[in-house]
Amino acid sequence: MVHTGTFELSTSGFCDVHDITAELGRVVKESRVRQGMACVACSGSTAGITTLEFEPGAVKDLQELIEKLVPHKRSYHHDATWGDANGFAHLRSALIGTSFAVPVAEGRLALGTWQQVVFVDFDNRPRNRRLTVVVSGE
Amino acid sequence: MVHTGTFELSTSGFCDVHDITAELGRVVKESRVRQGMACVACSGSTAGITTLEFEPGAVKDLQELIEKLVPHKRSYHHDATWGDANGFAHLRSALIGTSFAVPVAEGRLALGTWQQVVFVDFDNRPRNRRLTVVVSGE
Amino acid sequence: MVHTGTFELSTSGFCDVHDITAELGRVVKESRVRQGMACVACSGSTAGITTLEFEPGAVKDLQELIEKLVPHKRSYHHDATWGDANGFAHLRSALIGTSFAVPVAEGRLALGTWQQVVFVDFDNRPRNRRLTVVVSGE
Repeated sequence: MVHTGTFELSTSGFCDVHDITAELGRVVKESRVRQGMACVACSGSTAGITTLEFEPGAVKDLQELIEKLVPHKRSYHHDATWGDANGFAHLRSALIGTSFAVPVAEGRLALGTWQQVVFVDFDNRPRNRRLTVVVSGE
Repeated sequence: MVHTGTFELSTSGFCDVHDITAELGRVVKESRVRQGMACVACSGSTAGITTLEFEPGAVKDLQELIEKLVPHKRSYHHDATWGDANGFAHLRSALIGTSFAVPVAEGRLALGTWQQVVFVDFDNRPRNRRLTVVVSGE
Repeated sequence: MVHTGTFELSTSGFCDVHDITAELGRVVKESRVRQGMACVACSGSTAGITTLEFEPGAVKDLQELIEKLVPHKRSYHHDATWGDANGFAHLRSALIGTSFAVPVAEGRLALGTWQQVVFVDFDNRPRNRRLTVVVSGE
C-alpha cells in the first residue's frame, strides 16, 4: 500500500517553527498502513524539517542556535549574485535537511511522547508552503 | 514485504555513542528483503542517529564537535521552563536528526566498509532506549 | 515495485559539491514508480548528501559554512590514531548525513524548482564514488 497526502502551511518566515505532527498522523491514518514508513518533504530550498519537543522554550533555543551557527547578518555569496538576501536561509536548510523519514509501527509514527516533527521556515518573508507525505507499508 | 524489528540500548547519556550497525543488519536479515529500504528511528527528543567510522578517535572528535556547536553549559530557555537541565540535549537531537534511512541492496545495508550507523544519546542521564527499524522491499 | 539504480561520480574532494538531481530523476523514471519514495546513499564516511539551490554563490557559501563549523586545520583525534589526516571529513559527514529520502509524487521527486539534491565530498583527496538509489512504490 502506498498513500500520498499533502498539506499547506502559512508561515511568517525568519525561523518560524511549526508542529506538523498532527498533519503527518492524519495522513498515516488515511493510509491505513499498520507497519511501514512515512516520509515528509517540503519543496523548497529555504526550509527544514526535524524533530523537537515543541514547547516555547525549546523553540526559542532552536532559533538562537540556528542564528549562532548560520548568522543572518553576514554577507553571503548567494545574495551578492541574486540580490534576494536570503543566502542564510539556503544554508540553514542545507544544514538541517528538508525531509524526514520515520517508521510507522502499529499504525502510528515511531515518535516519543514529547517528540514532535517540526517544519522550520528559514526564508526572509512570509511563505505559503506545501508539504508532501508518502506512507508505504501494509 | 515489510518487516519491523526493535532493539534496546542502555546508554550512559552525555553524548554516549553506540554502534548499531549489527542490530540493523540483523533486522535486515530477518526481513529477507534483498532490495529495498531500511529506516531506523529512536523515540525521543534527546538523541540522534547518524553515520560515523566507529573508532575511539572519531567518536571523541564527534563528542568535541557537538560540545563546540551546542555547549552543554550555556543557559537554555527549555531549562528555565522545565527545570530538567537537558535543553542542550534537545538542540543536539534537532541538529543531528533522530532517524536514518538507507537503501538495502543485495540483502545488505548500502554502507561503506568503515561506515557505521551510530546512535548518540545526548541526554543528561543514563537511559534505556528502544529503537524501531522498518525494512521494506522485495 | 522496487527498483535499484547506481551511479558513479569522480570528485576532487575538499568539499566538492555535485548536483545529483538528474541522476536521481533518471533512476525514478526507470523505476516507473508514480507514487512512493526514493532513497539515495553514499557508501563512505567522508561524504554527505543534502539539498541546496545549486548555483555558484550558494555552493561557495556552503563550503565556507562547513569550514567554519568543522575547520579542516584543527587537530583531530582520528588523525592522531590513523594518520590519514581526514578527521575533519568524517565529522562533516556525520553532521550533514550520508543519505537522503524523499517522496515521489506523480512520477517525480518532491523537490522545489530551485532545489537540487547535492553530493558533497569532504575527503582530503580526489575520490571515485558510487551512489545507490532505491525507489519503491506503485
